[in-house]
Amino acid sequence: MVQYQQELDATFAALADPTRRGILERLGEGSATVSELAEPYGMSLTGLKKHVRVLEDAELVTTEKVGRARRCSLGPRRLDDVELWVGRHRRMLDARLARLGEFLDRTKGEST
Amino acid sequence: MVQYQQELDATFAALADPTRRGILERLGEGSATVSELAEPYGMSLTGLKKHVRVLEDAELVTTEKVGRARRCSLGPRRLDDVELWVGRHRRMLDARLARLGEFLDRTKGEST
Repeated sequence: MVQYQQELDATFAALADPTRRGILERLGEGSATVSELAEPYGMSLTGLKKHVRVLEDAELVTTEKVGRARRCSLGPRRLDDVELWVGRHRRMLDARLARLGEFLDRTKGEST
Repeated sequence: MVQYQQELDATFAALADPTRRGILERLGEGSATVSELAEPYGMSLTGLKKHVRVLEDAELVTTEKVGRARRCSLGPRRLDDVELWVGRHRRMLDARLARLGEFLDRTKGEST
């Protein structure tokens, strides 16, 4: 349970940055080298590599050395946890809103 | 677009902490005072208030002063953005996996 919480921490923290979300969106279209990923941001390779490492630590991205380049791909596992947590939280919320709606219906007397 | 990105940053960062996720889960069952929220964590009120403020800034929680206590409730708006982003990202990923599956089907010759 502690490990699950730590993984969720790392995943949410990794997603809390527009460059890192952009990298994930780009990798959604297919794998890319670090240089290709850096291009649209006008960012140094060193800067971009730091972002890739955060995503790699959160297992949202996997990388492998191909010749002299490092190729990045999506590592899908941990986004499942995010979706699960958000979805579970939303269902609780929806149930609460439904109860509130029923309460309002009951208390407003005759409906028009 | 910049504001949307900044809001997503704040939302994901707010969710990157087990205490804050715990607070949201607790508030999913109904509103609570800061003291009630602090109880299960054995945390000081000051410590808990900091977490509540982060959630408030991310508009995941709203608070109001009721007598001498501060009552916290869920503010649902921004979780929609998280769900939307994760969902969109997942759909891209699923499409990519489906294409990969088709490719593997085509290349494996006769199926058994």
